[in-house]
Amino acid sequence: MSSDYETDRASVQVVVEKEATGKVKDIYKEIQETLGIDFVPNMYKALAGNPDYLEMTWKKVQMVMGVDGKLGRKTKDIVALTVSIMSGCEYCTNVYNEAVKHAGLDNDALLELYAVIDLYSGLNRLNIGLQTKMDEKPWHGCGGS
Amino acid sequence: MSSDYETDRASVQVVVEKEATGKVKDIYKEIQETLGIDFVPNMYKALAGNPDYLEMTWKKVQMVMGVDGKLGRKTKDIVALTVSIMSGCEYCTNVYNEAVKHAGLDNDALLELYAVIDLYSGLNRLNIGLQTKMDEKPWHGCGGS
Amino acid sequence: MSSDYETDRASVQVVVEKEATGKVKDIYKEIQETLGIDFVPNMYKALAGNPDYLEMTWKKVQMVMGVDGKLGRKTKDIVALTVSIMSGCEYCTNVYNEAVKHAGLDNDALLELYAVIDLYSGLNRLNIGLQTKMDEKPWHGCGGS
Amino acid sequence: MSSDYETDRASVQVVVEKEATGKVKDIYKEIQETLGIDFVPNMYKALAGNPDYLEMTWKKVQMVMGVDGKLGRKTKDIVALTVSIMSGCEYCTNVYNEAVKHAGLDNDALLELYAVIDLYSGLNRLNIGLQTKMDEKPWHGCGGS
Amino acid sequence: MSSDYETDRASVQVVVEKEATGKVKDIYKEIQETLGIDFVPNMYKALAGNPDYLEMTWKKVQMVMGVDGKLGRKTKDIVALTVSIMSGCEYCTNVYNEAVKHAGLDNDALLELYAVIDLYSGLNRLNIGLQTKMDEKPWHGCGGS
Amino acid sequence: MSSDYETDRASVQVVVEKEATGKVKDIYKEIQETLGIDFVPNMYKALAGNPDYLEMTWKKVQMVMGVDGKLGRKTKDIVALTVSIMSGCEYCTNVYNEAVKHAGLDNDALLELYAVIDLYSGLNRLNIGLQTKMDEKPWHGCGGS
Repeated sequence: MSSDYETDRASVQVVVEKEATGKVKDIYKEIQETLGIDFVPNMYKALAGNPDYLEMTWKKVQMVMGVDGKLGRKTKDIVALTVSIMSGCEYCTNVYNEAVKHAGLDNDALLELYAVIDLYSGLNRLNIGLQTKMDEKPWHGCGGS
Repeated sequence: MSSDYETDRASVQVVVEKEATGKVKDIYKEIQETLGIDFVPNMYKALAGNPDYLEMTWKKVQMVMGVDGKLGRKTKDIVALTVSIMSGCEYCTNVYNEAVKHAGLDNDALLELYAVIDLYSGLNRLNIGLQTKMDEKPWHGCGGS
Repeated sequence: MSSDYETDRASVQVVVEKEATGKVKDIYKEIQETLGIDFVPNMYKALAGNPDYLEMTWKKVQMVMGVDGKLGRKTKDIVALTVSIMSGCEYCTNVYNEAVKHAGLDNDALLELYAVIDLYSGLNRLNIGLQTKMDEKPWHGCGGS
Repeated sequence: MSSDYETDRASVQVVVEKEATGKVKDIYKEIQETLGIDFVPNMYKALAGNPDYLEMTWKKVQMVMGVDGKLGRKTKDIVALTVSIMSGCEYCTNVYNEAVKHAGLDNDALLELYAVIDLYSGLNRLNIGLQTKMDEKPWHGCGGS
Repeated sequence: MSSDYETDRASVQVVVEKEATGKVKDIYKEIQETLGIDFVPNMYKALAGNPDYLEMTWKKVQMVMGVDGKLGRKTKDIVALTVSIMSGCEYCTNVYNEAVKHAGLDNDALLELYAVIDLYSGLNRLNIGLQTKMDEKPWHGCGGS
Repeated sequence: MSSDYETDRASVQVVVEKEATGKVKDIYKEIQETLGIDFVPNMYKALAGNPDYLEMTWKKVQMVMGVDGKLGRKTKDIVALTVSIMSGCEYCTNVYNEAVKHAGLDNDALLELYAVIDLYSGLNRLNIGLQTKMDEKPWHGCGGS
């Protein structure tokens, strides 16, 4: 039998959508329109206790992810998932597993991505253990010229 | 004044190229041909003390990185760099910073990549701290629909 | 339907309070009195299988956290939470989110703290990626002189 | 004998101070005035290749660190150092070791801080290994009531 | 009330045992026979979407763990558990907590192991914070000569 | 040309051996006798600014590493090296690479150890990415029954 304490672990008070006012209400609206969803993700509802921090975060997210730069949206989502897996953030891993599927990665592509992460997580630790010395000349990664 | 001990920190004996024989010599040759370089990276020279481990590692690297799958070589190099940065492996970060430049990322693209890594490293920790609860419905990442 | 195996994952046998004897019983009593709680946290009950390790851990905790040193109790709790978030320990993050609230951090202060952790988790990875070279002269952090 | 390749590892082209123009020049000026230093830290010179990213980063830094909020500047610097140590960022650890000394931490206080980080890095891994179950009731950290 | 979305989070489609054919079926059979179990662990069922990756992974696992080398099976399981705890992988920590018990570690031995991990996780962060300089001469660890 | 600032990065004042008095002098003597070396490692010289913290650390080290428990000294050194590699602590990795060689690991054994760390660092990230669900029954690791 679980007590409320055991199951309800969010650390700050969230601002639910119907109670949002002013700047928070505007940003909530913009988030839903931009992301094409009919709810506000829990992460943003937690930040809303500090409207300036919510605004700064949402603006940085849009600056980094919302424009077509040199990398392209799909590649950025793949990097976001990789960072989430490496950080061990379960919430973020879940969101970005969905995001990369939405961006077009099918089951095969997703397994390819995990294989690259698996490979380099191993090689990184290997080189840290080996205390591998820098090579005298540059090379261009393990995949070929 | 540094003693040899302080400056020479590789943890295992490397097999230098001119002393390589048999399976190790063959793999060294294949590495140089495949990667288009005229030397063997220090990482592989350290593994060569165990020829089976060297062979397994080189084969896995080729299986994961050396074929054009669904992700594409450039995207895989970007993921490899991201993993290296997240693992804090200086050797690997250096190799893959070179690799992604070789794969076509210019100064602007590289800064875009670091910005994505910066953004999500921050958001990941934020959500771990917030103990953010899973949303009731899936969404598709921060960048837009 | 979950089996017992799936839900009961503690890795060692805990010593429950009513079965504690000798040194373990004494430390259990001291923990409850010192922390002002009427139960023994699960962490200590797991360590009790090795009474010397339990004692050493409790003594170190008291030496580091239980005295008013130069940093002050509240600051130490904030650092403990920061370390827990960076380690990705869910149990510890939960305990120290409660601890810093108990020490006086309200919703605003907690969001300020997460913002600092978010900011530097990002900047740290950025500098690891950039392989930023040490500056020629010291400076005093990003906040101002 | 080191080649240039081995010693010069910055991954992007920096914008040196005398070549800065427009927005970058203005931000460089603001950084020096705000931080009370007569040079631009290497981190910012690396970001300057993308003036918008430089601006966004500097603004976020000022929003989070540059105002007297509920936590206080000194506590924020301590958290920034803790995050840097946990991320294993050598550049950032160096900057923030200097920053907390500048903020008033003497040798004793610095050792107290490292002791808290040491203690919780250990306890965090212990609880991850133990797969410690959440306690049924909240408590307020290891230091006392 | 939990939706399916909230509770069912596996990111790829698994190949269940009765639907396995060809190479996947063969490897599934080999896994069960080698490990002495009557089911296929979820990790392998997830990899089976890419039979070559499944095969490569299983072969690497057998090469590294399945032979009596210089370290011995029990020591390798202990290292596998240590890596899992340090990575914060809950699934792997659970599997290897069981594995080391099966390999002969009783409650006392398991607590000894956690104590070593606790100790060095602390000392590691301490030395990263201290920016400890390499000693002029080698020594042989903290335990004695 | 490096300034003193760039090359001398220790964050606290060390207590050199000839200036040690009282409790610090006694512990320095005990460290050298116990470890069989004619100098005090830099880590301990940095802690000596707080004699109680130095004493507590040395006692914990001796309790955990200095006695023949169920795991054995060699296994503990192997775990200490594994933790150091996973934490990315260069100083500790260097000390424990030496320690395990001193404890009897030759070049082959060391490569075996790195292979286990490589393998599980990869598998851990794979399972975090896959969000692998706990198996319904326990199994005993990848190596066989």
